[in-house]
Amino acid sequence: MNLQIVSIQNVPEIRPGMNLSECLRGAVRSSGWSFQPGDILAVTQKVISKAEGRIVNLGDVVPSAYSVSIARRMSKDPRLVEIILRESRRIVRMRGEVLICETHHGFICANAGVDESNVEHAGWVTLLPKDPDRSARALARELGCGVIITDTFGRVWRDGLVDAAIGIARVPAFLDFRGKTDPYGHRLRVTLLAAADALSAAAGLAMGKTAGTPAAVIRGFEWEEAQDTSAASLLRPAERDLFL
Amino acid sequence: MNLQIVSIQNVPEIRPGMNLSECLRGAVRSSGWSFQPGDILAVTQKVISKAEGRIVNLGDVVPSAYSVSIARRMSKDPRLVEIILRESRRIVRMRGEVLICETHHGFICANAGVDESNVEHAGWVTLLPKDPDRSARALARELGCGVIITDTFGRVWRDGLVDAAIGIARVPAFLDFRGKTDPYGHRLRVTLLAAADALSAAAGLAMGKTAGTPAAVIRGFEWEEAQDTSAASLLRPAERDLFL
Repeated sequence: MNLQIVSIQNVPEIRPGMNLSECLRGAVRSSGWSFQPGDILAVTQKVISKAEGRIVNLGDVVPSAYSVSIARRMSKDPRLVEIILRESRRIVRMRGEVLICETHHGFICANAGVDESNVEHAGWVTLLPKDPDRSARALARELGCGVIITDTFGRVWRDGLVDAAIGIARVPAFLDFRGKTDPYGHRLRVTLLAAADALSAAAGLAMGKTAGTPAAVIRGFEWEEAQDTSAASLLRPAERDLFL
Repeated sequence: MNLQIVSIQNVPEIRPGMNLSECLRGAVRSSGWSFQPGDILAVTQKVISKAEGRIVNLGDVVPSAYSVSIARRMSKDPRLVEIILRESRRIVRMRGEVLICETHHGFICANAGVDESNVEHAGWVTLLPKDPDRSARALARELGCGVIITDTFGRVWRDGLVDAAIGIARVPAFLDFRGKTDPYGHRLRVTLLAAADALSAAAGLAMGKTAGTPAAVIRGFEWEEAQDTSAASLLRPAERDLFL
């Protein structure tokens, strides 16, 4: 496989209500690229959230007594804690300054995905999109390509962050090698690769965090279009997880 | 960033004592590639283990009474369990047929990395390399490029497997954005990307599981050579982990 991942320059500052697919198509074109069959567009959560108006001015937030009490213990802004709790179905772990939540979608991540970085104005934060799989499907329809919406998550056991898929359209979540045979004729028993997460990880690296490049084109991945694909399918239910 | 990941064809069957760097250099050349400055070679654990003789015939293994008892409960081969326990510092979780271990290196993975797939003869298994960072350094010296040794791991919270780095040379484990400013002038507080893992994830996807392509060339990643880099640095100590 010859996989190519190219970050896209010149994406304009996205504001609520803007036509994101037009902006992305224009940025891809001005980078000297055009979508080819099989291409996948990776986009960070941040620009999706901005386009969808999932952005909050902390100045407008009145924290509850509970948020104030948690914020004091964790050295956080109580208004930020208030937003995090609103975005959470469940607090999974809290220790020191780390608050790991399960979002209403079922993602387990720090601060329920509420993020202060790469936002135009200080004092504003972005929330995760309401339904990232739906956001991905809309973009895929408008752009005519596969779409993966990424966010940057921590991991258990291993330090550092990697990008993972929070919304996908057309692209399969998994590559399933179960029951296939390796070159020696032995049947593989358990290998189900989380393809959308692996592509997200590489796209997140190509996009970086400071370059103002919130999108990347992935070319050369060998995939078949999947109708009912979703990033939600990547989530392991808590009752099947040995560490929750 | 324009990242390219190309799987390498024609790697011969690697057997103990073979000169792995010669085999890989030949395979890269016959794929029409040659190493350029900045290239990184990703190699699966499997071929490193085979070259280093980290391969065991289950027929030669006498399981202990403890291995027999675990094997019965988990529907596993007692000789396989015996090998897994020998490779383990600690059993982290055991439930159903799943045995998650901490290896002597500190990797937390299913079956302590002992693997029956992609092995030439049925009834043989590979063990992880004794010191994968040292293995990576040796390859990097002989090939004159960055090296990442990958293995396929499960994750917490999310279904499916992704490849991660178990040995690295020259290549930084992390890209550190902490203290840098985003395009809006706000300082990033916590973003430390696990670059070697993200590259491993993409390389694992490009290599697949059934194509007989245990190596890939990664080109276009923007990195600076790191002297004292290691995959061991990616491991979070249990006392700092909120889920162990």
